[in-house]
Amino acid sequence: MNVSDAIKYKRAVRKFKDVPLPDDVVFAILNAGRRAQSAKNTQPWHFIAIRKKETLAEMARLGEWASHLAGAALAVAILTVDPAIRFSIMFDAGQAAAYMQLAAWELGVGSCLATIYQPEKARTLLGFPEDFYLNVAISFGYPLNEVVLTAPPVKGGRRSFADTVHWEHW
Amino acid sequence: MNVSDAIKYKRAVRKFKDVPLPDDVVFAILNAGRRAQSAKNTQPWHFIAIRKKETLAEMARLGEWASHLAGAALAVAILTVDPAIRFSIMFDAGQAAAYMQLAAWELGVGSCLATIYQPEKARTLLGFPEDFYLNVAISFGYPLNEVVLTAPPVKGGRRSFADTVHWEHW
Repeated sequence: MNVSDAIKYKRAVRKFKDVPLPDDVVFAILNAGRRAQSAKNTQPWHFIAIRKKETLAEMARLGEWASHLAGAALAVAILTVDPAIRFSIMFDAGQAAAYMQLAAWELGVGSCLATIYQPEKARTLLGFPEDFYLNVAISFGYPLNEVVLTAPPVKGGRRSFADTVHWEHW
Repeated sequence: MNVSDAIKYKRAVRKFKDVPLPDDVVFAILNAGRRAQSAKNTQPWHFIAIRKKETLAEMARLGEWASHLAGAALAVAILTVDPAIRFSIMFDAGQAAAYMQLAAWELGVGSCLATIYQPEKARTLLGFPEDFYLNVAISFGYPLNEVVLTAPPVKGGRRSFADTVHWEHW
């Protein structure tokens, strides 16, 4: 799948088939995130890859709209150093997330971001140290409804080009 | 170009040929950013697309490592609402940047991120309103050294998989 099609057709997927992802697919997704660029190549992230159903179910309770994690075949928790240090940390985490989700889409794997609203419960659940923070996790899995993989983009899903892009000056 | 190759081979490009990018390439890059996902689809960004050489030269003076902007065929300034409001704003900006840079790479266009260290000078230069902020701009152009487009990834450019990924728990 070429890049422009992946960008055009990828959509959020929140309902997944109850089948595991093959190991090579899991590695491809994680490697895509690992390869993302970052400010001064600081790579300010660690990833926790979660496939145990009990842990996924616990993760789903850490955010108001995180319930899709419970049905995922894989969740990737994106840990960062303290994002309050500089704006580039969450920016870089966003780049890594985009890489993972586009790489997944090419492999027929859907995904959805979840904001973690209970970071300290997450720390207890996943055992990460004090100097790392969890704000975002991503659910991955084969879409329950396969039609989404080839469906046309939703009309009106984004602001228009004219409302988004300025030429030379605001 | 498939997604996994774009992710694997894309590298930062800081030196560009002194030739303009065709309009359809510029639109493809900007549309890729526009199509990025964002928390609750807030699309917390505006993009200013800059091709005037004088403005690019001024942009290059807004950050300590931003000099590559001067030689770019296109700079995209990613404006966001106040990134201090919530961590997802810069995260979403990072996703949009990744989309633009991967879409560009597929079209043979190199790019490099620049952190803007003089946001108020940037505001004066580009005329954006008080409730928008500029932390990151991206330079785009055809690589001066075309070899980079097909060169193998730099060895040791990222932490190892084992140093980055944890299974189930830290």
